[in-house]
Amino acid sequence: MVGAVGGAAVMYQAMGMMGLAQASPYSGPIKLDDAPAGTKVLVLGAGIAGMVAAMELRDAGYEVEVLEYRGVAGGRCWTLRAGDTYEELGGAVQKVDFAEGNYFNPGPWRVPYNHYGILDYCRRLDVELEALIQINNMAYVHSTKAFDGKPVRYREINSDFRGHISDLLSKVTNQGALDDVLSEEDKANLLAGLRTFGALNSDNQYVSGNAASGRRGYERPPGGGVDGAPIANEVLDVSTLLSSGLWSRLATSESLNSSMPIFQPKGGMDMIARAMAANLGDLVKYEKRVTQIRQDETGVTVVYEDMANDGAEVTTAADYAVCTIPFSILSQIDHDFSGPLSSVISTMSYNTSIKVGLEFNRRFWEEDEHIYGGTTYTDLPISQISYPSNDYLSKKPGVLLGAYSWGATAYQFSSMPPEERVSRALEYGSQIHPQMTEEFKAGVAVAWHRVPWTLGCYGAWQDKDAQYADGVAMDRRIVCAGEHLSYLPAWMEGAVLSSLDAIGRLHQAATGNAGN
Amino acid sequence: MVGAVGGAAVMYQAMGMMGLAQASPYSGPIKLDDAPAGTKVLVLGAGIAGMVAAMELRDAGYEVEVLEYRGVAGGRCWTLRAGDTYEELGGAVQKVDFAEGNYFNPGPWRVPYNHYGILDYCRRLDVELEALIQINNMAYVHSTKAFDGKPVRYREINSDFRGHISDLLSKVTNQGALDDVLSEEDKANLLAGLRTFGALNSDNQYVSGNAASGRRGYERPPGGGVDGAPIANEVLDVSTLLSSGLWSRLATSESLNSSMPIFQPKGGMDMIARAMAANLGDLVKYEKRVTQIRQDETGVTVVYEDMANDGAEVTTAADYAVCTIPFSILSQIDHDFSGPLSSVISTMSYNTSIKVGLEFNRRFWEEDEHIYGGTTYTDLPISQISYPSNDYLSKKPGVLLGAYSWGATAYQFSSMPPEERVSRALEYGSQIHPQMTEEFKAGVAVAWHRVPWTLGCYGAWQDKDAQYADGVAMDRRIVCAGEHLSYLPAWMEGAVLSSLDAIGRLHQAATGNAGN
Repeated sequence: MVGAVGGAAVMYQAMGMMGLAQASPYSGPIKLDDAPAGTKVLVLGAGIAGMVAAMELRDAGYEVEVLEYRGVAGGRCWTLRAGDTYEELGGAVQKVDFAEGNYFNPGPWRVPYNHYGILDYCRRLDVELEALIQINNMAYVHSTKAFDGKPVRYREINSDFRGHISDLLSKVTNQGALDDVLSEEDKANLLAGLRTFGALNSDNQYVSGNAASGRRGYERPPGGGVDGAPIANEVLDVSTLLSSGLWSRLATSESLNSSMPIFQPKGGMDMIARAMAANLGDLVKYEKRVTQIRQDETGVTVVYEDMANDGAEVTTAADYAVCTIPFSILSQIDHDFSGPLSSVISTMSYNTSIKVGLEFNRRFWEEDEHIYGGTTYTDLPISQISYPSNDYLSKKPGVLLGAYSWGATAYQFSSMPPEERVSRALEYGSQIHPQMTEEFKAGVAVAWHRVPWTLGCYGAWQDKDAQYADGVAMDRRIVCAGEHLSYLPAWMEGAVLSSLDAIGRLHQAATGNAGN
Repeated sequence: MVGAVGGAAVMYQAMGMMGLAQASPYSGPIKLDDAPAGTKVLVLGAGIAGMVAAMELRDAGYEVEVLEYRGVAGGRCWTLRAGDTYEELGGAVQKVDFAEGNYFNPGPWRVPYNHYGILDYCRRLDVELEALIQINNMAYVHSTKAFDGKPVRYREINSDFRGHISDLLSKVTNQGALDDVLSEEDKANLLAGLRTFGALNSDNQYVSGNAASGRRGYERPPGGGVDGAPIANEVLDVSTLLSSGLWSRLATSESLNSSMPIFQPKGGMDMIARAMAANLGDLVKYEKRVTQIRQDETGVTVVYEDMANDGAEVTTAADYAVCTIPFSILSQIDHDFSGPLSSVISTMSYNTSIKVGLEFNRRFWEEDEHIYGGTTYTDLPISQISYPSNDYLSKKPGVLLGAYSWGATAYQFSSMPPEERVSRALEYGSQIHPQMTEEFKAGVAVAWHRVPWTLGCYGAWQDKDAQYADGVAMDRRIVCAGEHLSYLPAWMEGAVLSSLDAIGRLHQAATGNAGN
């Protein structure tokens, strides 16, 4: 058995690992050798980008000082827990009335498998991860314009779309419609492939029966004992399926950043920020509001208001700085960045987003509807309902993501007081889960345009192609970093990769290797 | 915003929950009312079926005695942990040399979301679950006959197959090949649907570029800083894709029993068995080897060898019995079941299966290849490699499923001594993961035909259509139950549903309602 296939392994080993051959922007911990002694770097902002920069520069031998506006680290990597209070821009205050141990991630909530940078920091800092269920075949797809507004199980639409397109393509293949593009062997392989892919019968047809029901669900599922034999249910006819529009949801979890496997830190997203902050210890100075940034050929000078000390004005200096302050905030700070970078700072807008966390007395989605984790997609303004991927089967109150929207809807929600955002999310959600009305316990709603430390969700370029080089370029003694300066906007990985690239260039400058 | 869609919700509520309308063989805890006082039921076997029967009958008021051959409960719901010893039929003994805390599930390893029965017992007994990653886009599909034996990432084959079939179907749709089966509106919806489903460009073509790479992976993924812009990689041409045969792996996780979400108990599958056994307490008598089963119109008499007491022969009696002993074992026990049931018992064969657990000094699949959980499929005799869905990022040794095979391969492995099974699994596996050779730490190999308490993996009927009614029918005072008497063979859910159906009928008989 072994000999016949041994050759491939030898050759494969000789070629090296395919996985390693595949280029990645993160290839392991950064190496910054020969940092010049006594060189100080100021890091502005203790979000993910700032803390990555601070940890690596410290480890390389630089003197590091981090100034953070808030009383805690993390920036958008943020978790609201039972008992927390959150005051948004405009003064509305929300007390998080969740049951002990429950939490909600208003910002990032997922760590995709292909975000090697942030995953490696989790590994190095011992942040425990658990799988987040992205695809749930039992969750719903929902359109107010299809099936009389009734939600349909994802698996039904997924199975029927795969089945019908496989059936149609088989039909035309057998009719010769592909004879000019496929060989006979290709066609035979295609038909075999479609049979498997679409759960077709031996005539390559997608029809009601146990093959289809084995994917989309049964009228009576296979059981045990006397009436154990299954009864198939009926597949949707192709026209009903196509006119529903619900097929638009079938690719959501195919994109790299949303495909399985994908993770969440156990206990809340800010466990990552907490681990980084603990690693940095007292290098991070909290409640320091930066008011002025100046630089010359010899160094950087930053003025800040020390909110931990009655707002006293303090000036600090360094040889270099990494500025991770979002441009939405930085544009309001007195700085002397050069013209091209200033132009990027002042023209970058920040998209908003609304997220509503809803706590219910019991996990009706699990108990009544057999939905464990995953996401229901809807054309209602809440856009999606995402069920918790932790504490499955718990009999205690559970928190779900009751709304996660962008664009016009997010603006509308942002203009409401928080309690109205919550009640709207409940109203919409109850069209999918009627139990919401009775089981509601507590809610919290974060509108990102009103989050004081970012004034938005992520940076949107006026003209990325034209401006990107100016935005990322080191400006004399200062380099900017963050998700906004990456091609993974709104993701923590964008912040990590931007930060590593930025400090690599800062280090080159500091060691006189800027010409590289 | 709310009013426009309010009507649908009202109607939906009036119609009741879709989820509840969908029939299931498990609709909540069984209700067995008015059990006749002083009625005793003997349960043979403390696997899942036997323990479910015992718990429910006890709760209904029956006197219950459970006889179990082994020293622990669970049957095939079994976990091998560091330090365990396992002696198989033939006398080969394996000591599990794993690192502290590591384990391996030789039998069931997954609890699908649609197995409502076993999930409800987990809920009721507070068994904690965690998500098992079934689909991993980063895992491999591998054929010794394709790509020179090199493994390919699942996402590349998945994206390219979806893309190419969507491209082909779009093409023929635009050429009019479907004009006789689809309306103009259908065709427009189909084209839009295929664009999304297949990651096609605006001309409905699947071509190399960022749209395809956003699913299949990039030459250089999106990054941060100076060189942040992504570079797409090349899609496979349709003929190469089709001739690879690797598309045969794309439906594995579409079937209901293997689709997301799917779970594992934290700490090992036998946490379910342990919870049931703890619930039953001293109702379960361990190390009792049943040697004879007799019944008449008034009751059941069972003789067993008390292995906990020097093999003393003991006779016990009851009004009724539930027999969950696998037919592979029961056929060797002296019994007086009626002709039709005896015929089923003697003609049922048990399929075998081989599972090999391999422990490595480090999680090279995570560290080197970015594979977190999920399964690699191969045409090598090991069939699959499944990576642990727990302790992600751990720096300690990790255990993966290094082989899981059926049929001829399983017979071949069964005939080898355990250590050779392990070394073969390593040899094959190293063709996909060359690191296996150097990182190997310990292994354990279970061949199900050699497991003393089942002599096989699951029951296979000689002629299920013809025999099923005889197999499940109550035989005077005894009813049989287990996965073998269900339409979910080899699954714990089959055992649960079979058991609940069996005790429902036993209860009807005991309460004189047998005519129902």
